[in-house]
Amino acid sequence: MPVGFVQIPVGIAGPLLLDGREYSVPMATTEGCLVASTNRGCKAILMSGGATSVLLRDGMTRAPVVRFESAKRAAELKFFLENPVNYDTLAVIFNRSSRFARLQQIKCAIAGKNLYLRFSCSTGDAMGMNMVSKGVQNVLDFLTEDFPDMDVIGISGNYCSDKKPAAVNWIEGRGKSVVCEAVIKEDVVKKVLKTDVASLVELNTLKNLTGSALAGALGGFNAHAANIVSAIFIATGQDPAQNVESSHCITMMEAVNDGKDLHVSVTMPSIEVGTVGGGTQLASQSACLNLLGVKGANKESPGRNARLLAAIVAGSVLAGELSLMSAISAGQLVKSHMKYNRSSKDVSNACC
Amino acid sequence: MPVGFVQIPVGIAGPLLLDGREYSVPMATTEGCLVASTNRGCKAILMSGGATSVLLRDGMTRAPVVRFESAKRAAELKFFLENPVNYDTLAVIFNRSSRFARLQQIKCAIAGKNLYLRFSCSTGDAMGMNMVSKGVQNVLDFLTEDFPDMDVIGISGNYCSDKKPAAVNWIEGRGKSVVCEAVIKEDVVKKVLKTDVASLVELNTLKNLTGSALAGALGGFNAHAANIVSAIFIATGQDPAQNVESSHCITMMEAVNDGKDLHVSVTMPSIEVGTVGGGTQLASQSACLNLLGVKGANKESPGRNARLLAAIVAGSVLAGELSLMSAISAGQLVKSHMKYNRSSKDVSNACC
Amino acid sequence: MPVGFVQIPVGIAGPLLLDGREYSVPMATTEGCLVASTNRGCKAILMSGGATSVLLRDGMTRAPVVRFESAKRAAELKFFLENPVNYDTLAVIFNRSSRFARLQQIKCAIAGKNLYLRFSCSTGDAMGMNMVSKGVQNVLDFLTEDFPDMDVIGISGNYCSDKKPAAVNWIEGRGKSVVCEAVIKEDVVKKVLKTDVASLVELNTLKNLTGSALAGALGGFNAHAANIVSAIFIATGQDPAQNVESSHCITMMEAVNDGKDLHVSVTMPSIEVGTVGGGTQLASQSACLNLLGVKGANKESPGRNARLLAAIVAGSVLAGELSLMSAISAGQLVKSHMKYNRSSKDVSNACC
Amino acid sequence: MPVGFVQIPVGIAGPLLLDGREYSVPMATTEGCLVASTNRGCKAILMSGGATSVLLRDGMTRAPVVRFESAKRAAELKFFLENPVNYDTLAVIFNRSSRFARLQQIKCAIAGKNLYLRFSCSTGDAMGMNMVSKGVQNVLDFLTEDFPDMDVIGISGNYCSDKKPAAVNWIEGRGKSVVCEAVIKEDVVKKVLKTDVASLVELNTLKNLTGSALAGALGGFNAHAANIVSAIFIATGQDPAQNVESSHCITMMEAVNDGKDLHVSVTMPSIEVGTVGGGTQLASQSACLNLLGVKGANKESPGRNARLLAAIVAGSVLAGELSLMSAISAGQLVKSHMKYNRSSKDVSNACC
Repeated sequence: MPVGFVQIPVGIAGPLLLDGREYSVPMATTEGCLVASTNRGCKAILMSGGATSVLLRDGMTRAPVVRFESAKRAAELKFFLENPVNYDTLAVIFNRSSRFARLQQIKCAIAGKNLYLRFSCSTGDAMGMNMVSKGVQNVLDFLTEDFPDMDVIGISGNYCSDKKPAAVNWIEGRGKSVVCEAVIKEDVVKKVLKTDVASLVELNTLKNLTGSALAGALGGFNAHAANIVSAIFIATGQDPAQNVESSHCITMMEAVNDGKDLHVSVTMPSIEVGTVGGGTQLASQSACLNLLGVKGANKESPGRNARLLAAIVAGSVLAGELSLMSAISAGQLVKSHMKYNRSSKDVSNACC
Repeated sequence: MPVGFVQIPVGIAGPLLLDGREYSVPMATTEGCLVASTNRGCKAILMSGGATSVLLRDGMTRAPVVRFESAKRAAELKFFLENPVNYDTLAVIFNRSSRFARLQQIKCAIAGKNLYLRFSCSTGDAMGMNMVSKGVQNVLDFLTEDFPDMDVIGISGNYCSDKKPAAVNWIEGRGKSVVCEAVIKEDVVKKVLKTDVASLVELNTLKNLTGSALAGALGGFNAHAANIVSAIFIATGQDPAQNVESSHCITMMEAVNDGKDLHVSVTMPSIEVGTVGGGTQLASQSACLNLLGVKGANKESPGRNARLLAAIVAGSVLAGELSLMSAISAGQLVKSHMKYNRSSKDVSNACC
Repeated sequence: MPVGFVQIPVGIAGPLLLDGREYSVPMATTEGCLVASTNRGCKAILMSGGATSVLLRDGMTRAPVVRFESAKRAAELKFFLENPVNYDTLAVIFNRSSRFARLQQIKCAIAGKNLYLRFSCSTGDAMGMNMVSKGVQNVLDFLTEDFPDMDVIGISGNYCSDKKPAAVNWIEGRGKSVVCEAVIKEDVVKKVLKTDVASLVELNTLKNLTGSALAGALGGFNAHAANIVSAIFIATGQDPAQNVESSHCITMMEAVNDGKDLHVSVTMPSIEVGTVGGGTQLASQSACLNLLGVKGANKESPGRNARLLAAIVAGSVLAGELSLMSAISAGQLVKSHMKYNRSSKDVSNACC
Repeated sequence: MPVGFVQIPVGIAGPLLLDGREYSVPMATTEGCLVASTNRGCKAILMSGGATSVLLRDGMTRAPVVRFESAKRAAELKFFLENPVNYDTLAVIFNRSSRFARLQQIKCAIAGKNLYLRFSCSTGDAMGMNMVSKGVQNVLDFLTEDFPDMDVIGISGNYCSDKKPAAVNWIEGRGKSVVCEAVIKEDVVKKVLKTDVASLVELNTLKNLTGSALAGALGGFNAHAANIVSAIFIATGQDPAQNVESSHCITMMEAVNDGKDLHVSVTMPSIEVGTVGGGTQLASQSACLNLLGVKGANKESPGRNARLLAAIVAGSVLAGELSLMSAISAGQLVKSHMKYNRSSKDVSNACC
């Protein structure tokens, strides 16, 4: 049914040295400077001994909205779900949706007589939206017996929350929650990033923390995480619309080792990725997953490929943040030395 | 420098009858059901006489952060910029960045001795980030004469705000601000959308308004605007990372004509698109722009092509919202009639 | 050490018929119309059979921020705290802070190598900030043995979050989470509230849901909950600064019984109140608590007085919302009948 | 109609040296430690040469919601209002509401066919809600002639936004927008605040910026601004419910003079205060206003008293932030020196 295809250029950034292994990161983007910029960040990380990541959480969510005749009844279902005995029964029902689906939590929110049930579950190597939706449908069907007065208004009540900026994802997490860090050596900051630690720390505080605070940002405490997330998402067949919350990120830059070196980190609570299903099956996207060694389902340990992909996304964002922040910082340092050409180049960098 | 290309399937939704003209909308996505779903929405709009759009605002922004020795001095620059005489001078300096750039406003935000200057300007048919950045650089260079104590920390201080969910874009707008509406006839809601007006209005209130409110959403008062925005962005060579704020949208559904018909609208304050530069020059993307009749710069009226593209994005989102909301609503109606197959299909629809 | 006192007039609203009992609600305010307005709402509730409330959650929070040398170490403490065995040990340590303190949860948030630990605990009839802070101090002292490299930056890291509008309270709750509802009969809406059900439902959707969405509201999906919360807080010796999050509220109005009657509800996730300690001991404030029958600690069931006070706050907010929304709605209805005097009165009402 | 009064103890903090003058600041609070803490901050400011404030903006707002048959018509009213010729006419109509009311701006927001008109005007020495509401009513009455199809849904559509946490106030401002700053000398930080510059800067970054970012804060980038705001509001007869947005504040702490001294600032965009009307007329509250020299209307320059009161509120918040942040910081320093008594005192301080 497709009438054709659009082609997006793919560049390779890296090697990205992450958790002791090197990765060549495919980025699909029409902005060449984005790959070059990320590449520079990878070089700085490599020369500093590499980056480390930790997976903090892994679960996809879906939140139907159901309505009762009264808030009292809505609360009764909430308490019913919070009762361990009932929860265990529902988990069995839910998990029938797939051999990979494992219910983790049901978080409830109430607005009068309307109840929002945010189901969270592990989904193996799949991004998991269909899996969790089916599990939710199973549970709703089951609940109609004990709660015949429950009126299911929608399988999704926006408390999930999918493809919308929402605090619930920023605070509770959705998909993979990952933190990634590196210590960049003083001389690497100077020679590769062309700036200095103090300037980077100050810029991060005034731009990524203070500026975003003034802008009323939600999960947007970074320079351009969305650029790297989209480029990798498109290259590896992820859902590019999920870039909205998958790019939630707080970038921290702190001086360490008596102010000589830079500790940089990105904390990303809702990276939604999979290595099976959807666009991952297309030829070119599949090749990009293969390049990263995360193609398809992980046989020994289901979910490991998707979790590794999330870690690579975070590691690449770390590289991208390092490089753009340095370009912005250096652009100004150079300005103060009246070298306009260099500065204008950085201005264009600042646009990636 | 690219090592290759990824291919994204392109489907055509439409005809979308918008402001009296019909458009075939190219959508690059790996989820076929997304095109089918949007297509159904277009059919409902077509059978109801078409959709209408209004451009509310058009300006790209960039906000550098500068620092002074005191808040007093930062405020002095703020007052200086708000003085019409100075503003007019700066506009001349700013507009030298391009024959299309026209400074519209400089909105200031202060955090102690740090000042954030949000420049807004029209940018012809270009998305405009580079244009506005150059204009900003011109103004900053000029200001250093009157404010030698101004320390430029960064050309972007995140008050812009680019590719991050931020209230400043939701409230002030960025790029094109568009509202698009249609009145869907009672029988079209029944026959094409397989639901009824009352159910849609109720679902919209409980999901897109109430559910998003509970989720702490920022500009995310819709069902899946991001799906349609990314699909068209990728097809037409836009920056997919800007999907983050370009998909900010509030979807309203109200019963009209004594409750018989449905008034549906989408209000999108920050659609960032261009028809020249960046990815729009690539062959397949250029062909998609051509299909819409918005390829390149508009000779008679600079900016008209980009504004029309924004309107088409909004119109397509209107169609997508109509169809998914109906699928969710109908899925439940059907559930109540115990037709599981139909329901499960809607569940998968609900995942697009 | 106080040099004197300010006097705030106290009016009585009610009787508020809540969960089968009648309450005379003391409101300390300089705006007489606020008491009159709330009183009208109480009358509407009384004539409709009363309001019902449900306590959804009860726990005070405090979140210290600690720093490690790496995100890896910060994550290790997170996983340590999430291990049931360790948690149980820490609960024993924490609970030593008071015979009423019972640790409920430790929710962690990470920003690079900085860890925020949101402790939640029940606190009997006390609002509980001091109690939870002492418990947190106990746990931090204890943890320094297993985590000698943990650097305690602050006993409060703003992830608590106290006296600041923050999504974490809106989503997780703080203090008492209460939902309160009532069904207002058709004729009561007409005769007492001087408006009609359809107008109220529409106004609630366009003002409390849509208008607040456009304003970028956080937990502010109501008309004037803060007015009632502050008035009762001041009258009963609560901390008026906590009005910030205690007034978080989503007001829902839905037509029921074939559209004849009005179902109205307020859902308030973070009402922070106590009946012992702080200002509750002062003579006049203590008298107000006595008037409500919630003075001091509840001997049979510790915490019952504070929970009842929270329910009364929610019930009074329900009355206040009903009345002001009706005044705004009626003001316009009357406008359409060209009765200016009445309208202007409603305008002033709209200012409470 | 009041049945009695509650008494709130009033303490005096100060002298607060602000813009070259000393003020004794009345604080009505049941927490004695709050006055003592603020007093310590005032001492640190006094010994460092005083604080400086700048008024950035001054205007009260009210936003009615009106509905049309189509978004097209709603947009037509928006464009009509943005036309300078029409605006000038409306300003004349609006300003008839009071000899002090001066219309400054009408900011429009659209949600489909619903239009929200945020009127902003100067209001002399009054807080101004009634004044602006009357002006809005005048304009709405006038507009019905040119826009007979305009349906006024409510005089307040929550885009104002009054007594609710909303980004529109944080970004646009409401009431008085004030920035206040001071440079605290190194030895004063040591001797009076019992901590050091580096610790304060770090705590501010990790608590007031990073911690609040993680918590999804809106305008809550401070330690306890709400405490000081409410205490002064209650003492001087302001509306304590407006503490919600009046306490919006971003506190910045930066090392200056080669890291020796501390530059501290508070930026508060929406301080809603008045020196006439409402609670300001009550005896004790009037006395407190007198103590500050801002009682009643300013004859020579209408509005000067209210603006000065706003500056004093900001200056007192500056003092309060300095002191509590120091207590939290010192509490930990002391902990490391194993002096538990001192620490526990700081813990209780941390609760104010």
